[in-house]
Amino acid sequence: MADVNKVVLAYSGGLDTSVILKWLQDTYNCEVVTFTADLGQGEEVEPARAKAQAMGVKEIYIDDLREEFVRDFVFPMFRANTVYEGEYLLGTSIARPLIAKRLIEIANETGADAISHGATGKGNDQVRFELGAYALKPGVKVIAPWREWDLLSREKLMDYAEKHAIPIERHGKKKSPYSMDANLLHISYEGGVLEDTWTEHEEDMWRWTVSPENAPNTPTYIELTYRNGDIVAIDGVDMSPATVLATLNRIGGENGIGRLDIVENRYVGMKSRGCYETPGGTIMLRAHRAIESITLDREVAHLKDELMPKYASLIYTGYWWSPERLMLQQMIDASQVNVNGVVRLKLYKGNVVVTGRKSDDSLFDANIATFEEDGGAYNQADAAGFIKLNALRMRIAANKGRTLL
Amino acid sequence: MADVNKVVLAYSGGLDTSVILKWLQDTYNCEVVTFTADLGQGEEVEPARAKAQAMGVKEIYIDDLREEFVRDFVFPMFRANTVYEGEYLLGTSIARPLIAKRLIEIANETGADAISHGATGKGNDQVRFELGAYALKPGVKVIAPWREWDLLSREKLMDYAEKHAIPIERHGKKKSPYSMDANLLHISYEGGVLEDTWTEHEEDMWRWTVSPENAPNTPTYIELTYRNGDIVAIDGVDMSPATVLATLNRIGGENGIGRLDIVENRYVGMKSRGCYETPGGTIMLRAHRAIESITLDREVAHLKDELMPKYASLIYTGYWWSPERLMLQQMIDASQVNVNGVVRLKLYKGNVVVTGRKSDDSLFDANIATFEEDGGAYNQADAAGFIKLNALRMRIAANKGRTLL
Amino acid sequence: MADVNKVVLAYSGGLDTSVILKWLQDTYNCEVVTFTADLGQGEEVEPARAKAQAMGVKEIYIDDLREEFVRDFVFPMFRANTVYEGEYLLGTSIARPLIAKRLIEIANETGADAISHGATGKGNDQVRFELGAYALKPGVKVIAPWREWDLLSREKLMDYAEKHAIPIERHGKKKSPYSMDANLLHISYEGGVLEDTWTEHEEDMWRWTVSPENAPNTPTYIELTYRNGDIVAIDGVDMSPATVLATLNRIGGENGIGRLDIVENRYVGMKSRGCYETPGGTIMLRAHRAIESITLDREVAHLKDELMPKYASLIYTGYWWSPERLMLQQMIDASQVNVNGVVRLKLYKGNVVVTGRKSDDSLFDANIATFEEDGGAYNQADAAGFIKLNALRMRIAANKGRTLL
Amino acid sequence: MADVNKVVLAYSGGLDTSVILKWLQDTYNCEVVTFTADLGQGEEVEPARAKAQAMGVKEIYIDDLREEFVRDFVFPMFRANTVYEGEYLLGTSIARPLIAKRLIEIANETGADAISHGATGKGNDQVRFELGAYALKPGVKVIAPWREWDLLSREKLMDYAEKHAIPIERHGKKKSPYSMDANLLHISYEGGVLEDTWTEHEEDMWRWTVSPENAPNTPTYIELTYRNGDIVAIDGVDMSPATVLATLNRIGGENGIGRLDIVENRYVGMKSRGCYETPGGTIMLRAHRAIESITLDREVAHLKDELMPKYASLIYTGYWWSPERLMLQQMIDASQVNVNGVVRLKLYKGNVVVTGRKSDDSLFDANIATFEEDGGAYNQADAAGFIKLNALRMRIAANKGRTLL
Repeated sequence: MADVNKVVLAYSGGLDTSVILKWLQDTYNCEVVTFTADLGQGEEVEPARAKAQAMGVKEIYIDDLREEFVRDFVFPMFRANTVYEGEYLLGTSIARPLIAKRLIEIANETGADAISHGATGKGNDQVRFELGAYALKPGVKVIAPWREWDLLSREKLMDYAEKHAIPIERHGKKKSPYSMDANLLHISYEGGVLEDTWTEHEEDMWRWTVSPENAPNTPTYIELTYRNGDIVAIDGVDMSPATVLATLNRIGGENGIGRLDIVENRYVGMKSRGCYETPGGTIMLRAHRAIESITLDREVAHLKDELMPKYASLIYTGYWWSPERLMLQQMIDASQVNVNGVVRLKLYKGNVVVTGRKSDDSLFDANIATFEEDGGAYNQADAAGFIKLNALRMRIAANKGRTLL
Repeated sequence: MADVNKVVLAYSGGLDTSVILKWLQDTYNCEVVTFTADLGQGEEVEPARAKAQAMGVKEIYIDDLREEFVRDFVFPMFRANTVYEGEYLLGTSIARPLIAKRLIEIANETGADAISHGATGKGNDQVRFELGAYALKPGVKVIAPWREWDLLSREKLMDYAEKHAIPIERHGKKKSPYSMDANLLHISYEGGVLEDTWTEHEEDMWRWTVSPENAPNTPTYIELTYRNGDIVAIDGVDMSPATVLATLNRIGGENGIGRLDIVENRYVGMKSRGCYETPGGTIMLRAHRAIESITLDREVAHLKDELMPKYASLIYTGYWWSPERLMLQQMIDASQVNVNGVVRLKLYKGNVVVTGRKSDDSLFDANIATFEEDGGAYNQADAAGFIKLNALRMRIAANKGRTLL
Repeated sequence: MADVNKVVLAYSGGLDTSVILKWLQDTYNCEVVTFTADLGQGEEVEPARAKAQAMGVKEIYIDDLREEFVRDFVFPMFRANTVYEGEYLLGTSIARPLIAKRLIEIANETGADAISHGATGKGNDQVRFELGAYALKPGVKVIAPWREWDLLSREKLMDYAEKHAIPIERHGKKKSPYSMDANLLHISYEGGVLEDTWTEHEEDMWRWTVSPENAPNTPTYIELTYRNGDIVAIDGVDMSPATVLATLNRIGGENGIGRLDIVENRYVGMKSRGCYETPGGTIMLRAHRAIESITLDREVAHLKDELMPKYASLIYTGYWWSPERLMLQQMIDASQVNVNGVVRLKLYKGNVVVTGRKSDDSLFDANIATFEEDGGAYNQADAAGFIKLNALRMRIAANKGRTLL
Repeated sequence: MADVNKVVLAYSGGLDTSVILKWLQDTYNCEVVTFTADLGQGEEVEPARAKAQAMGVKEIYIDDLREEFVRDFVFPMFRANTVYEGEYLLGTSIARPLIAKRLIEIANETGADAISHGATGKGNDQVRFELGAYALKPGVKVIAPWREWDLLSREKLMDYAEKHAIPIERHGKKKSPYSMDANLLHISYEGGVLEDTWTEHEEDMWRWTVSPENAPNTPTYIELTYRNGDIVAIDGVDMSPATVLATLNRIGGENGIGRLDIVENRYVGMKSRGCYETPGGTIMLRAHRAIESITLDREVAHLKDELMPKYASLIYTGYWWSPERLMLQQMIDASQVNVNGVVRLKLYKGNVVVTGRKSDDSLFDANIATFEEDGGAYNQADAAGFIKLNALRMRIAANKGRTLL
């Protein structure tokens, strides 16, 4: 067991991390610094203070990171139209590097030599926390209680809590049967009945969105204004990044948008099923592609598309804080300089429909594209040579007897 | 002007290709063979016979290619989860290589030395037809009237038709303002008001789908059975490929599924706006990803995702009949040997929701994935070493003073 | 410590694996099966039998795997022009999966429940052995003594050997200061003075090749005949795969060909310097590219080149026995069906010079390529349209004010 | 025929472009501006002035572009370790965009509305010139005489020259039978006996390098100093980019380095054989990989390797002046910030041998890499977990009955 003087704990204030807090104190006989972040998860963070104080914590960090989260993590990711395995918008993945960064910053400020978190040994989050931590502070010690202790069932955890007088709150709402994670980009659900891939998810699982069935019978139209690939205004009203996302979450949620039920491949080697609500993100992905469709050069767009799966995997597997992610980001960001303009969307019962896009930087040239006479803007005869030379290698091959059928 | 003896014309029976037929006879003073295909476009093909006969055509081919189209073109494409530029399901693109192949087969059967088609010099279809034709019969002559003649407006075309007594049918339905293309996979709409990217498409443009607003208020559930990556049964009833797609089109269309409005990048270098209805294809894409999610190895899935944009571009740009597409196809097809099982979907007002997937070939291991105790199936301590070594290069770099922030 | 009944050990007969043999017997109190392979390393394998017998081993496998090694591993890899990090021909990497496969086959034959090997915990080889073993027999136990025991210095190892009466042979030749690995594809050298990346490697380190300085003053010409991407004859004489490689090693070594001194990135996260002699492989890489240059379609060749780094990494990191490597291999092998013909090479003091290539499947068309009049085989005017349309997107962008400078 | 007022001609002063000059004056009845560049081709450029004057040209540009060529084109390309089709160092390709840029700059300065060049309709150079020109000045007219006129044989060209009193110089050296191109990076040879891929190139074809046979019997050692991926000093002496390349050409040429004989795939669709001398470039490629091997992160290096073929194709096919090349360049350049240090090379009879590399930014950690005891720098036990989790997906698959053999 490592010799630890002071550890910064990613502390939610909930039962699990409260048990961890106590367990760290007892097991490592070390000082614990708590760090609680408001990432837009929709729960109060201040109550964590009293709980930490009650357990004797002297250095307590409670940060509102919502703007930084959206501005420096969510928005850069959406510039790449990032989707993991064709479906997942990486709502959990993208929050972890920010937490890792703050854990290390706080460790540096408080002179701590270790960090700790409540992620299990089976998931991706441990990897995301720890790769980030090691990359930013290579000598840091990492304590991952779920990989070390023997409190591997809920029962044992409760016993430990009772034995150590850790308050177990009984919400009015009964304990969710799901393992959940939330931030301004999404809520995720795992476990419970979802562990059978054939069983349909339950309607009452969802927290942020109404069902398409219960969404309004009339559509909502919105206009999103982009600058350098990021949304800067909704319906003409300038907003900060976090306000943009919160607003889209609200509108999307009201219209039944952004539910997802998938089986994904974890970095640690297993498949797992997850359900996700990402109302704002679902809107942003569609809209970003729409604004890019008129402002990006074709080959730039295609290059971005070819690299996107790699970029998405890097984020999913926890390599946000890596030189290769930064390298890709520079390319992605460089591509966004002309991604300016407005996208009009129709939102209706789960559907996000693009109904218009315009931009001073549009590369759409109606004069050339038209089916009507174009006054010589495009010489149709050019196409003959274009096709002939593109076909040449295949014609030579066929002439030499190569067959394709 | 090339010296042509006999030309096979892709003949729809409509005004444009009727004018072309006449124009070919007059301009090239050659025999014309007509080829009319039923690709599921939803219009009768038999009437083309009488029209061709009326213009003196002796060799008339009218083929029902629906099964071949879906089995050998649409299904192989969907095995790759193919999407062009993040949105477009390639409904037009995938039909062209089959037409090119039949044109060449008929040229070989009839001793024709040339082929002709009605695609303009601005679009992708000319490229798709001609690359395919050249690849399969390198010495063939290609006549693309739209690139050669001076009938470049609708008015001139009508004049020519009248002058040559080509019947201009007046449908009960008034002429669509859109340039359209249809086959069993989709209908496309271009031109008209769509030439302004900011103008919303009109509701009465759509032909195959009801709007989400007008779709039923109760969802439809279906189960799709996959074998080797292809759908072989719906709700337990075995069906041929074309029947599968026709059925999904019907069900999807009734539920308002599969409308798309995009600006895409053509191979010839311009951006153009298109609207597409692909009800069956939209369902198939979602369902195929779902069945792959439990049956494909992670790295195989990721490799497919990384290559998909390239594969999609090959189809979009007309390289179906190329050695590189065949090479990719072999890899894609090889990946599908275990893609067997059933996907359950909920269809509701434009939404395609995956609600379950199961397979005898599933790689989902509930025992390992569970949040409960797993009886040693997975050793959480392994994760520590996994993370440590994955972090090593970044720790070394940080120790040497490299920074990421 | 795992409960082990019988373990198959990859046994070279040398000191290290002899110590391991004894240590396994003592530590695990289990039966040991030895497996010694002739992969063309140039040392007798039979002596391993007596040594194993002397330590009480009852089941002894000594296999000549040279043909299988070259036919099923080396040749398939060279079909892809495989190079890791621009330089390394993967001589060590490609032998490991065959050893892993045999270890598992022998475990199955002898009813062993474990395998063991002499690779350290710092290198790539442990990964290659174990990933292969787990992939082929998922329940197998793996014993990696270097990760478990405390004999972590040469001194301690010698002590252990002496204490247990394990014979330490004193070759006439003094012990090499390098950690070496050899098989029919190459010898590698690591450690010693190479641990300083600035220090020049020593001339007397090399075993298989003369220096360019000492190579003959007159060049050697050879002709290699390819069938489906593999060499089947040298100077018109048909040869088995292993004989091909042995012959090229001899000729290459005599002409000072195939030395390499690099710093590479290991899978476990560190950089390490290695020197490699790969005389035959160096010739094969050059020659294979030459035969492909006239027989492969351009886009097929480019697709292979784009995927090669990925394929090389898979082999380097030990994923030979993975579904993604197999998937890539199918594509690579499919590309080789026309890679037939003859390449003529001039070998001279370290240089491999291609001086000619010919093939019945050549796609080189002198009639089209000629600088002389080509009788209409190629219409130069086609190029104008080709360029115009390829430039269109950039012209539109420039017209809209986009700049590139 | 386009209506042209003034055309800027890429003018070498040789016979072909002198004929073109005259032909342009006669055919287009327009003013011609000549542009002659010193790109290090090794021939005097000043004589072009008198020739142009003799033909009545009033605006004559003669530019020494050597520094700009190496600094802004050659060096950026080598940062990516760029190689086309595994072998070709792109010596011709990389010079064309600079010429295109100057043609357009001069057109803008002189108010010309057209440019012209002497590249044929079969090659890549026409594409490179014209794509660049169109990208930088979208409305420019391009006159490519070889695609327009009927002087398609050497004989006709000579007749035209004689008829119009264009001086045909008779060098002492007899006319090379090869089509050649030279600049500071390389000389190329095409045509003549090279049009048969089986015929060996002739020793007396080569101009810049001695043969390995005739190179000195003692090796030459040099040390190259890198800053941000570019060479800034040779043997400790600071040099400008062009001087670096000229120096390496001299040293490399003396040591028989940099000859290449390949069959390549042209953009216009045919295969063609070329011989190239690139002494300095051959050294630079090897050395750049060596300095990167100790200074680049593994994943950054691998990402560069995966993108390199694409980047090489962009340059080969003439897309230097494209947004996608610029986008890739930003990523490549960003990767070079730590590529600093010194590489020691041994040059001997065609061989470029890396014998040492060092850097203050080295990521090589001898303490971790060592085969000796490392004092805990690396925990070998970590490897077990690393391998176990990397193997997990394959173990699950094998447990479910999937097979790899």
